[in-house]
Amino acid sequence: MSSSDIFIGETIGTAILILLGGGVCAAVTLKASKARNAGWLAITFGWGFAVLTAVYTSAPLSGAHLNPAVTLALAIKDGDWSNVPVYWAGQLLGAMIGAALVWVVYYGQFQAHLTDQEIVGGPGAQATKAAEAQEAQAGPVLGVFSTGPEIRNVVQNVATEVIGTIVLVLAVLTQGLNDKGNGLGTLGALVTALVVVSIGLSLGGPTGYAINPARDLGPRIVHALLPLPNKGGSDWGYAWIPVVAPLIGGAIAAGIYNVAFA
Amino acid sequence: MSSSDIFIGETIGTAILILLGGGVCAAVTLKASKARNAGWLAITFGWGFAVLTAVYTSAPLSGAHLNPAVTLALAIKDGDWSNVPVYWAGQLLGAMIGAALVWVVYYGQFQAHLTDQEIVGGPGAQATKAAEAQEAQAGPVLGVFSTGPEIRNVVQNVATEVIGTIVLVLAVLTQGLNDKGNGLGTLGALVTALVVVSIGLSLGGPTGYAINPARDLGPRIVHALLPLPNKGGSDWGYAWIPVVAPLIGGAIAAGIYNVAFA
Amino acid sequence: MSSSDIFIGETIGTAILILLGGGVCAAVTLKASKARNAGWLAITFGWGFAVLTAVYTSAPLSGAHLNPAVTLALAIKDGDWSNVPVYWAGQLLGAMIGAALVWVVYYGQFQAHLTDQEIVGGPGAQATKAAEAQEAQAGPVLGVFSTGPEIRNVVQNVATEVIGTIVLVLAVLTQGLNDKGNGLGTLGALVTALVVVSIGLSLGGPTGYAINPARDLGPRIVHALLPLPNKGGSDWGYAWIPVVAPLIGGAIAAGIYNVAFA
Amino acid sequence: MSSSDIFIGETIGTAILILLGGGVCAAVTLKASKARNAGWLAITFGWGFAVLTAVYTSAPLSGAHLNPAVTLALAIKDGDWSNVPVYWAGQLLGAMIGAALVWVVYYGQFQAHLTDQEIVGGPGAQATKAAEAQEAQAGPVLGVFSTGPEIRNVVQNVATEVIGTIVLVLAVLTQGLNDKGNGLGTLGALVTALVVVSIGLSLGGPTGYAINPARDLGPRIVHALLPLPNKGGSDWGYAWIPVVAPLIGGAIAAGIYNVAFA
Repeated sequence: MSSSDIFIGETIGTAILILLGGGVCAAVTLKASKARNAGWLAITFGWGFAVLTAVYTSAPLSGAHLNPAVTLALAIKDGDWSNVPVYWAGQLLGAMIGAALVWVVYYGQFQAHLTDQEIVGGPGAQATKAAEAQEAQAGPVLGVFSTGPEIRNVVQNVATEVIGTIVLVLAVLTQGLNDKGNGLGTLGALVTALVVVSIGLSLGGPTGYAINPARDLGPRIVHALLPLPNKGGSDWGYAWIPVVAPLIGGAIAAGIYNVAFA
Repeated sequence: MSSSDIFIGETIGTAILILLGGGVCAAVTLKASKARNAGWLAITFGWGFAVLTAVYTSAPLSGAHLNPAVTLALAIKDGDWSNVPVYWAGQLLGAMIGAALVWVVYYGQFQAHLTDQEIVGGPGAQATKAAEAQEAQAGPVLGVFSTGPEIRNVVQNVATEVIGTIVLVLAVLTQGLNDKGNGLGTLGALVTALVVVSIGLSLGGPTGYAINPARDLGPRIVHALLPLPNKGGSDWGYAWIPVVAPLIGGAIAAGIYNVAFA
Repeated sequence: MSSSDIFIGETIGTAILILLGGGVCAAVTLKASKARNAGWLAITFGWGFAVLTAVYTSAPLSGAHLNPAVTLALAIKDGDWSNVPVYWAGQLLGAMIGAALVWVVYYGQFQAHLTDQEIVGGPGAQATKAAEAQEAQAGPVLGVFSTGPEIRNVVQNVATEVIGTIVLVLAVLTQGLNDKGNGLGTLGALVTALVVVSIGLSLGGPTGYAINPARDLGPRIVHALLPLPNKGGSDWGYAWIPVVAPLIGGAIAAGIYNVAFA
Repeated sequence: MSSSDIFIGETIGTAILILLGGGVCAAVTLKASKARNAGWLAITFGWGFAVLTAVYTSAPLSGAHLNPAVTLALAIKDGDWSNVPVYWAGQLLGAMIGAALVWVVYYGQFQAHLTDQEIVGGPGAQATKAAEAQEAQAGPVLGVFSTGPEIRNVVQNVATEVIGTIVLVLAVLTQGLNDKGNGLGTLGALVTALVVVSIGLSLGGPTGYAINPARDLGPRIVHALLPLPNKGGSDWGYAWIPVVAPLIGGAIAAGIYNVAFA
């Protein structure tokens, strides 16, 4: 794979990932969306099939890492770091494009939601003191872009993201052992997608399962830049956790793989 | 493939697509249906597995485009326009047959729903001025047949349908790169189905994701023709968007494919 | 395949099908079940994965028809009627065994449900005159065993079951064209399962989608025989429709296949 | 496969299984989880995809039994008992590790949940006498770790777990007949996962479908050991059923397989 194919593939793939992943969060959250309040199962399947669509589409160009933690783990496993910067650059750019596209698709819904007094500043949105404090850090639609914890506890939040990423990356790394040269890449993409559904359903409760630095940082930057009314803060105090913890998790998974599976 | 196989395959396939896709909308919407209020997840899985069933059944005859935007994109990609009219004719005819079959399957439910005073004209159905205005344009069961926007905004509505179709068609076009001659058409059909679930969950909130001109226009014509009581308008003012926007999206996707993937 | 393999395979397979299919109805319906009120999506996925489990397990023995309408369609398609009686006998016996096993698995739940005054005879269960009349024909747990219509209309009920079965059988018959000798029977079983989910979501609203004579008749016989307290009637007046209509649908599907696909 | 590969594979695989399976129970149950009250469908898909992730990841090392009942059945089928102790030891250790990891991931949620007066000891949690009695035996978060019956009836509870395990193990044993040497182990893992979803949806209502001795015993031991506040009892009176009944079910399934399929 050439560097340009890698860059284009990762940009397209991660843009599709975040367009569809951020899209389901917008669909379930925003006013005047047909999918409003469709629930956690819709969010987790939405993100899982976002992975499927993105991996399937970009795999022929770049192998579809779409996640800096996956790129890191493969570099550790293979001992080849030459393409890491190209992968990471494409992933971050793609994530920002995807987040901007969510805004385009849900433009009217964002406007309606963020200018609805009850949602933005009324008593319904700030029923408890805890909710008020969290609202001050994280704007009312930040959840469409980036993840945030239900309980702010650095050690637990880091541990949750590390463990979730280990599960994801171990499944990605064992793919090569499972397809045994049958070239069943499509089936591998499907399994990866369902693994992401699994992580969402099972480990997403505390922090919203970033498990991917680009998935969280790119959209957070876009949230900070977009001219959304009443958008509130981008919660930069939390932003380092969904970047650092998945990278730690990817490295640990590569270590486990090299010791136990290789 | 002969022209008659293409025409028959697309007619059967698109009829099954709309029978099952319109069927799930009827199931979730109409009075006296066991699936009433089953929610957005039921609708999106219902449409996705409708695609699976329709593609799987018609692929041996016509290759299962079942969507004028897919046919357009493949013509652009391959530079071969000879069968486009046959595909489009079969797709529109099939969509109309499918919509009529939904009416047969849910005949009693349509009657019960449309003669229920509370649903048709009572205060429950017209609680707000906005709902009243939309009701005047779109009849109370038009959503079983065709799509409509939550917020009427031509630019946003077109953009949403264009972007949704780009995602769908890119996934369809990369299928050939993914199966690598293993003849895994069944797996491709499954992936396409789950991509459609993904688009529904993530991008369906604003307009109901037509992403297919035949899927929207055929059933809208049938809605206009059927002798349904109190059926209301067919919202022809919106009808051009789910026809034109998916064709634009298909063309853009073919362009992206030819530049980045070919 | 020997006659005894066919008989044993169909008996085991249909028993698993009805154990799991009837099981999800019991799980969602009965008092003191963890899955109570899990909704229509649970029922339709439950039946679909019941098909997957049953087909996967019995396919090596009998080819996994598990449905007299499928057996009829394959006999018409292939012009070979020699094994039809063996298939049908195994299917009916298996369906009865499966229904009896549902009773074993949910024994305490049946007892609790049927002796709960509010459910059996109280005002909650008979809120409207229509519900009262239907209750007189169909006992309060008959739905765990057999299907019944929301609106009793012979023509519509027959049409709905015929159309649903045509979709199912067309997908089954095109399986041979889709796997192209790759021996991907497992993928065919998965597609068939998701087609059944699709039919449930989209066409199940009016009658509960029997689409299989054995699936409906076998459990109805068992409902009539079991010593359940306050079980009410077995609704024999409706029983012919889910037997006859699927057979008509299977024959029509075989005809469509022979004309259009063969 | 070497003994050490088997032990490591089963430990890693069962740890992932219980991390994700227990995780979804925590996600749906505990206070301050984003997935709270996501429902039975989330639990059953969560466990199913936990199986997929765990089987996929550990299959290259140990063949991914991850269940003492599966190991028993394969030993009976093949007449080879040499590795049974290694498999069982890895499974129990892995299950304990997985349960401990659930506690790490949901640490703050456990604390919040178990110190919430309304949940732990208030009138909401003990609304009825039956609930009070059950609470005395099973602590308020035991369901995150181990299974328990809705109705305590030894014969029914054993029968339900035996029947559920027979279905699971029959599907596992027929895998070798279905893939016909195509090496489609990934597809087998997917089918097994969906079979587990099916068992959950259809047979999980009465007892919560342990169908795996390690899945129930390992986490119950961890529940007894963990320093959780107000955790209540570990319900040791019930603990033998989800150990013994699945082993009986596995043995019966192996017998059915050897008589009917071999």
